[in-house]
Amino acid sequence: MRRTRLTPEREAELYEAVLALLCEVGYDALTMDAVAARTHSSKATLYRQWRGKPELVARALRHNKPVSLADIDTGTVRDDLRAMVCRADTERMEKDTALMRGLGHAVHSNQDLHRALREVLIEPELAALDAMLRRAVVRGELAADNPAIPYVAHMMFGGFFARPLIEDRPADADYLSHYIEAVILPALGLDP
Amino acid sequence: MRRTRLTPEREAELYEAVLALLCEVGYDALTMDAVAARTHSSKATLYRQWRGKPELVARALRHNKPVSLADIDTGTVRDDLRAMVCRADTERMEKDTALMRGLGHAVHSNQDLHRALREVLIEPELAALDAMLRRAVVRGELAADNPAIPYVAHMMFGGFFARPLIEDRPADADYLSHYIEAVILPALGLDP
Repeated sequence: MRRTRLTPEREAELYEAVLALLCEVGYDALTMDAVAARTHSSKATLYRQWRGKPELVARALRHNKPVSLADIDTGTVRDDLRAMVCRADTERMEKDTALMRGLGHAVHSNQDLHRALREVLIEPELAALDAMLRRAVVRGELAADNPAIPYVAHMMFGGFFARPLIEDRPADADYLSHYIEAVILPALGLDP
Repeated sequence: MRRTRLTPEREAELYEAVLALLCEVGYDALTMDAVAARTHSSKATLYRQWRGKPELVARALRHNKPVSLADIDTGTVRDDLRAMVCRADTERMEKDTALMRGLGHAVHSNQDLHRALREVLIEPELAALDAMLRRAVVRGELAADNPAIPYVAHMMFGGFFARPLIEDRPADADYLSHYIEAVILPALGLDP
């Protein structure tokens, strides 16, 4: 794939347009034609950069992430975990909820989208989380066989996504910080 | 609401038909007419029992749950938590995943369905979980101010729903048992 044709600013504009369309019409109704029209690009330009709609949407969602776990390396696992949530404000979580709604059941029913999300979003973050926890083992903060290590991603998922269902309001940075102190650090045997 | 008209067997038949339709056509396309036709009932019968589609679907989903938290009271919080997952076999989790897919984005976009699910499914289970944890406090197994208590539901949610996304396979009883031992008991400060 050649990405040299677009400036970072232009790429960001395209991603913003894709996310806006995703919120407005949902994944199934989002077309490459609509993206091209909205951004005054040609479809040829879009297909030169992205293999198709699943990859374009996955990369737009990745672009939208305020912080990538791969960028976090504070020197302690406590502060690494805390840094994961520090930019999760309410406005941002509401936007994320709208995006998830836009993806809708396409996440489950569309194999290509599912694969693109795994490749572009989920697996890189899981690999970065794994690296974060392995650094903690090397530094002696966690035992290599700490049984909670394989489940940190599952706990974080619960923290982010359970609140709308359980408490009927979006997760925000305050709540997520409490969750990390109350749940994730103790599960790992780390004093807050 | 008068529920005396239906035998428990007949009620179960109706719920099974609703769940089958939910998997086949999804929530939006599921109609009271289709439920009536599939079960050889009159729509009047359905409306005598349930206020409408949201309540019928929510009650069918509740009927489908293998175990209600309100029925669990083993005498220790460890075994209460373990009992929550003992009937979660792979076949069952796959059925649940198909049902969730059937609900699709209607869960988010349809206020009446959202309300019915909260009233019929979510709030009773949260109340039962709360009662379970309060019994543990009364028995002295947990301190009343244990900071993880408010988040047990969030952790369980992560255990149930994160695995398909993170590991690309459904949660099953074995996995959930490990999760409880590795994460939930330590977060609550309970030795496994």
